[in-house]
Amino acid sequence: MAPRYAPSLRSSLAPLLLFLQLGFIVIYAFCTEIQREESRDEKTFSNIYPEFQDVNVMVILGFGFLCTFLVRYGFSASAFNLLVAVMATQWAMILNGIVSYRGKIRLNLRSLVDAEMCAASVLISIGAVLGKTNPVQLILISLLEVSGFILNKWVLQTLLRERMLNSIMVLHIFGTFFGLILTWILYRKGSEQGFEKEKFDRKTGLFSMFGTVFLWMFWPSFNSILVDDDTPWRKLGAVCSTYLALAVSAVTAAAVSVLSSPKGKLNLIHIQSCILAGGVAVGVSIPAIHHPWEAMIIGFTAAVVSTIGHRCLKIHMLLAFQCHDTCAVLSTFGLPGLLGWLAHLLLQINYLDDHTMAIRFAVFHISSLLITISLSLSMGIITGLLLMWKFWKPPQDRKCFDDQAFWEFPSLAVRK
Amino acid sequence: MAPRYAPSLRSSLAPLLLFLQLGFIVIYAFCTEIQREESRDEKTFSNIYPEFQDVNVMVILGFGFLCTFLVRYGFSASAFNLLVAVMATQWAMILNGIVSYRGKIRLNLRSLVDAEMCAASVLISIGAVLGKTNPVQLILISLLEVSGFILNKWVLQTLLRERMLNSIMVLHIFGTFFGLILTWILYRKGSEQGFEKEKFDRKTGLFSMFGTVFLWMFWPSFNSILVDDDTPWRKLGAVCSTYLALAVSAVTAAAVSVLSSPKGKLNLIHIQSCILAGGVAVGVSIPAIHHPWEAMIIGFTAAVVSTIGHRCLKIHMLLAFQCHDTCAVLSTFGLPGLLGWLAHLLLQINYLDDHTMAIRFAVFHISSLLITISLSLSMGIITGLLLMWKFWKPPQDRKCFDDQAFWEFPSLAVRK
Amino acid sequence: MAPRYAPSLRSSLAPLLLFLQLGFIVIYAFCTEIQREESRDEKTFSNIYPEFQDVNVMVILGFGFLCTFLVRYGFSASAFNLLVAVMATQWAMILNGIVSYRGKIRLNLRSLVDAEMCAASVLISIGAVLGKTNPVQLILISLLEVSGFILNKWVLQTLLRERMLNSIMVLHIFGTFFGLILTWILYRKGSEQGFEKEKFDRKTGLFSMFGTVFLWMFWPSFNSILVDDDTPWRKLGAVCSTYLALAVSAVTAAAVSVLSSPKGKLNLIHIQSCILAGGVAVGVSIPAIHHPWEAMIIGFTAAVVSTIGHRCLKIHMLLAFQCHDTCAVLSTFGLPGLLGWLAHLLLQINYLDDHTMAIRFAVFHISSLLITISLSLSMGIITGLLLMWKFWKPPQDRKCFDDQAFWEFPSLAVRK
Repeated sequence: MAPRYAPSLRSSLAPLLLFLQLGFIVIYAFCTEIQREESRDEKTFSNIYPEFQDVNVMVILGFGFLCTFLVRYGFSASAFNLLVAVMATQWAMILNGIVSYRGKIRLNLRSLVDAEMCAASVLISIGAVLGKTNPVQLILISLLEVSGFILNKWVLQTLLRERMLNSIMVLHIFGTFFGLILTWILYRKGSEQGFEKEKFDRKTGLFSMFGTVFLWMFWPSFNSILVDDDTPWRKLGAVCSTYLALAVSAVTAAAVSVLSSPKGKLNLIHIQSCILAGGVAVGVSIPAIHHPWEAMIIGFTAAVVSTIGHRCLKIHMLLAFQCHDTCAVLSTFGLPGLLGWLAHLLLQINYLDDHTMAIRFAVFHISSLLITISLSLSMGIITGLLLMWKFWKPPQDRKCFDDQAFWEFPSLAVRK
Repeated sequence: MAPRYAPSLRSSLAPLLLFLQLGFIVIYAFCTEIQREESRDEKTFSNIYPEFQDVNVMVILGFGFLCTFLVRYGFSASAFNLLVAVMATQWAMILNGIVSYRGKIRLNLRSLVDAEMCAASVLISIGAVLGKTNPVQLILISLLEVSGFILNKWVLQTLLRERMLNSIMVLHIFGTFFGLILTWILYRKGSEQGFEKEKFDRKTGLFSMFGTVFLWMFWPSFNSILVDDDTPWRKLGAVCSTYLALAVSAVTAAAVSVLSSPKGKLNLIHIQSCILAGGVAVGVSIPAIHHPWEAMIIGFTAAVVSTIGHRCLKIHMLLAFQCHDTCAVLSTFGLPGLLGWLAHLLLQINYLDDHTMAIRFAVFHISSLLITISLSLSMGIITGLLLMWKFWKPPQDRKCFDDQAFWEFPSLAVRK
Repeated sequence: MAPRYAPSLRSSLAPLLLFLQLGFIVIYAFCTEIQREESRDEKTFSNIYPEFQDVNVMVILGFGFLCTFLVRYGFSASAFNLLVAVMATQWAMILNGIVSYRGKIRLNLRSLVDAEMCAASVLISIGAVLGKTNPVQLILISLLEVSGFILNKWVLQTLLRERMLNSIMVLHIFGTFFGLILTWILYRKGSEQGFEKEKFDRKTGLFSMFGTVFLWMFWPSFNSILVDDDTPWRKLGAVCSTYLALAVSAVTAAAVSVLSSPKGKLNLIHIQSCILAGGVAVGVSIPAIHHPWEAMIIGFTAAVVSTIGHRCLKIHMLLAFQCHDTCAVLSTFGLPGLLGWLAHLLLQINYLDDHTMAIRFAVFHISSLLITISLSLSMGIITGLLLMWKFWKPPQDRKCFDDQAFWEFPSLAVRK
């Protein structure tokens, strides 16, 4: 009788994956080629390859294990993350290529990194609906969000001639708002009482700690990989600033977590998410940071905002706005991202002597935020309405946050 | 009375390890030196070092934790893997040096990587007999298999003048057939009923996921590290092709796992093994791949074959051939390896315009496969017959897949 | 009534962290700048960055998870490790800058690595008092020990004109003796009976194995990162020597662990710590190692000493000297460090033909050890006396080794 409670994935997930994958292969066969230019190529390859691997580790392992804290959802959290990441990366490479280049799409490490950044944005959104969606829905989210994200990048570049680097800003903010509107649309009645399995235990907390620590360690690579190679000290500055901001965030998150706890204790999940706030905020404002202490102040503020958000905002979002944000992506990525945006604005205006230039920059900067938020909300609404369709067979309320709905359950699987 | 059930390792493991290790030190003292050439050396060092570390992570952590899914065998799986890896690496560096060079053996990062590739081959074989052997047997396997592997490489190079790169092909296929014949010889009566402890649970599945993810992430380094530095775009091509093949494998493995499951659910262990199939197959065929979509098709086919192999082949191998393959190395490394070999053959023949050249290549390619398989089977039979000797005190059936046979059991060890 | 048993951290940890962090930000604002020299900069950056990340992984993840074997102390072990590491790194960068340079402190990857080495020293000490201190005490330890460590480095450089490289020697030995004297001063009556929660289980043993494996894999980077770039083969030599010494250590530790066990079995915790002995010892003696076999013999001896130390010394230290060394840092880092020091002395004297030079070196080398030990013991005594003050509210005996004293307990935290 198991199928009644947990619908089979055979008629939905398998055809969808096979269809998409075969489609991707056809597209790659006709539209892509490996970049063969010999000019400066080898230097670039061995320079960028270690950083590419750091970003790859963050996307595949970091984000995947960040969400394994859910006590009965570890298999799904880590494996669906991988699935979504590779679908999003493949799709993003195609779209990025179409948008940025006429003729065949050239594959190189830079295009892989750009695509993984899009995937990171999707993984942030996924965090908001984690445990309440099935893999079919997650795959659809990944395709639609990547399309929206790249549309947004294209709009920003076309209208505002924004530099590519800012895709890091777009990443956190776009992902958060997309995820939030999605989880708001997919709200399930009764969520206020909490789901039985939405909790963590000693061991899953440690698995999640692994993911966090990998994100924390490699965030300097994430923020510096898109900085131009031609100005080595800019790259060094990005690494040092991010490292210091992360260090400040870690200390501040611990302090604020204790301060805001009724019993004066630390909360592991809060700390795990909030020590990353500095990396997020500095990533968004990196072009305007010229001194490490600026990054440290940004990291400090981001950690304060993020930790307080974790303590108070998540429950209010649920009760007041019916927005059930599983991994608290608003506090983890959204608020620090917005803070970084604000810091970028203030710092840049401060550096620009010319009054006209400053106003011009402010207008551009504010427009790019507004465009990003509106596009992410619109795409989120479209995606959400599509996913509400019963055809996708979302898991029942009592099967939420439970691996049993999707996995051959291990304790029964004596024989592999 | 514990020793009656689990024989002490004192009189077997300890002397063996000390004897071998002291012997290795003596050999290294008289026959090796650090390579001191100044020519292009520094460039090479910092270019190759990050890739070497990626391969090192795969060998030590990836393979080690891939096998921790067994519910009561995590300590043994990870620690014996390390032990076998370092013994095999040390021994392989000596043998590789003897085979390839007259005079003193030169140590550099390249020789370390070559040795770790031999160790990877051993670790694949170990997967087939995991849980049914004691560490003494594992050490013997590592020494004999490394010898056989390097003998095979020497034969191929001498007879067929095969390029070094193909050692990656040899690696997966040699390891698989060696392991299979070994576990066939060491078959225990009653294995068909399954061992009590041969299962996985939620937490060990996640540990195993860690190992998988590290293998998955760093497989591009594994496939590209032996590609010549002189043609940077070949290296970039190897990385991109492997990445895409792995991505396709992940998607395809999930789809086929669902399709082939009676209840339409995913199986974590199958997915963990099968998402690597693309990396294996592309690694074997990398010299013949010129377009990413070729790698993607290979990855797709490899994942299909590997997942179906996992679902059907493992149990048939056990019941029909009395071949109890613990980690299903046939489906994980063997079938994708053979598929990669076939792809290499077809692609290369397709590229060669000259009819004579094509036939010549085909003969060489087929001979190298036959030589590899026959040598691996012969070495496997020799090793297996040696290991059947009761002198090595293999674990009793009821102590199979149990850490308690080899480890001071933690729950009793209040005081470290 | 929980607060009676586990005092709130609100009035102690939070203000301390905020005060220190804001102070650090002010210092960084007025005294530091990113290094902007263009000369040879880019080469250095992309050469050193992957090694920096390896060291970063060791410090943050390796040391952090090495201590997660305690069955109920995983959250604290990993999170407090991170907290201590970032405080120590920030403080060490300031002090290192003040000591080594007039004018503004220049931040670059080298200064980050130097600071992380100081942090590693603190993390070693922390291992000795782990589980018996609260985070406030750990933060104080980190500040005082970093100050002592850098004072020691300054004294050695000023008096003996010792080369910078030797900071790796100082690191292990300074950290060990500081930690030992600290845990001796903070001795709790009744420790001989053992604490109820001072044990490990299957899963926490595996988490700890992760930390170990990362330390083991990246130790070659740790030992080679401070070797001059100008002599590439010295760097290659450091990597190969460390790798071989670690390999020998792993084999030897397993052999000796079995030999010294009453039942002839392995002990996971012993093996985890002792396979690192070769890395520690070779790190201390690296400037004097010219052949790989020297490193292998050092690794062999270090593993023997370390494993026997683990089996016998820990319990004797506790019973005879009332020195309760939680993670057995004496055997893990102290003895191998001293052995490496001795090996350095013997090897260097052996290489120096000139009698006068040899004596001169010996005097310098012995003085530097004596200075290091006396300074570490003095700083340890000062720190210990400060920490004995009841004001810091150390955890009660029954709350030792328990996350519950500091963390919102997960099983109660249904709602994140």
